[in-house]
This record gives sequence, structure tokens and C-alpha cells, in this order.
Amino acid sequence: MIHLSVSDVMTGTVRTTTPAETMAGVATRLREEGIGSLIVVDPTSDELTGIVTESDIVRLVAAGAAGATTVSEMMSSDVITIAPDASIHDAARLMREHSIRRLPVVEGGELVGMLTTTNLVHYLPRLRNTILRERTQA
Amino acid sequence: MIHLSVSDVMTGTVRTTTPAETMAGVATRLREEGIGSLIVVDPTSDELTGIVTESDIVRLVAAGAAGATTVSEMMSSDVITIAPDASIHDAARLMREHSIRRLPVVEGGELVGMLTTTNLVHYLPRLRNTILRERTQA
Repeated sequence: MIHLSVSDVMTGTVRTTTPAETMAGVATRLREEGIGSLIVVDPTSDELTGIVTESDIVRLVAAGAAGATTVSEMMSSDVITIAPDASIHDAARLMREHSIRRLPVVEGGELVGMLTTTNLVHYLPRLRNTILRERTQA
Repeated sequence: MIHLSVSDVMTGTVRTTTPAETMAGVATRLREEGIGSLIVVDPTSDELTGIVTESDIVRLVAAGAAGATTVSEMMSSDVITIAPDASIHDAARLMREHSIRRLPVVEGGELVGMLTTTNLVHYLPRLRNTILRERTQA
């Protein structure tokens, strides 16, 4: 049986920032790298401490916040993560349950990738064939 | 054969704005309604003229633009749309090809819904069963 796992679909590169970065700095990084979020890592402990997304910037703009607002003031610190060997169906369920579009992928305490709704959708056209092949081999 | 179509998965409600709305106004609407984009409709002709998304706001913040920037200055006017009876696999391919996350759904010139990567991912856990059922009935 072919197991459709998070590691098959995730982006292996993880883009990080620090709690002291500014909203303007985050916006520049997101635009330049064509991504929707940055993982916030504590510069001393090197631990995952939050996630900052396009939606956080929209929220701040709506509130009339200045570009100098820091990541620590705008990030979500309760980060929902997933393991690389979890199934993509479990990942989709987790996203739905928590109304989120991005899951940092963590293995043994280490950040190893990022899974987004975009990753899952780009995989969708191949999914049908994979499921049917798996069924034939069962 | 069960056809997995855009109309099975899309959001039937379409949120619109006008070219004269401001960036700050768009940010407020997106935050209040918990969505990522607004369709831009011409107030006189009532025609679809663009789409404005979270990413457009991030781009403007990165460029140091003011909250008074108008939708007409920030929207994308080449809008890729899809028909409600198109398959979700074609929708996923179109999103991948154009690097977009949202497809306004248009039927006979009328805006009838919106399909996002989030809609597709929320459908993913049910997709496997639908594909296998379709196979059994083939």
C-alpha cells in the first residue's frame, strides 16, 4: 500500500524570522520570496516560538498599526505542527479543525519542512492516480 | 460515474468590493469576514473587473504604501475564472499553472461562487472515498 505522507508533499525549505523583526520586514520577506508565512525562531534557544502570516499583516493594517510593530506582537505562539510521516488526509483534517492553512513539519524536535494548502492542492491532480494504484495493489 | 465538480466544493457566497475602496477598507473587510480576497466589481456595469487579495496588501506594506491606496491601484485585473461544472482536478491544475490560490466561479457571465485552496483541502479527506466509490461504480 502506498502511504501518502506529509513528507511527499511538503516544502523542505523552512523560512524563519525572529521575534524582534518588524511587520515591514516580514512583508518584504514574504513578497520577495513569494510565500505566505515565516516561522518564528528564538535566536538564543533556536526553538520554534511562533508563526507569522499574511493574515497577521492584514489584521494589523485593519487596526492601523505601524510598520515598526514587531513579530513578537503579531505572531501566533500556539503553533500547530505535524510529523513528516502523518498522512496528508490527517494534515487536511488538522487544517480544517483549526482553520489554518499552514503546518510546520517537525520531527524529533527539529523543523524539517512546511506544509501549506497550496502544497496539497498542487498534489491533487496526481492524488487520484495514486489512490487508484494503491487500490489495485491492495 | 461521480463527477467531482467545482460546484460541489466552492463557497456559494461571493464577497465583492469596488475599485474606489481603500487598502485599509479591504484589510478591515478581510479580517472581519475571515477571508483572503474580495472580487472587484464595477459599480456601474456590475462586471467583474479584478480581484484583491491578502498578498496585494502584503506587497503594499512592503512598499511602504499608505492605507488610502485604492483597490484600482492594487488589484489584479487579469482574473482567471473557472466554470462550476469544471472538475476539481482542472481547478487544481489552473491554480498551479498560474500560481494562484483563488478562482472566481463564473457561469454565463454571472459570478456564482469562489473556489480557494482552502475549499479544496477541506474536501480532501472525503476525496479518497469518492474516488474509490466512483471506481466501484465504473
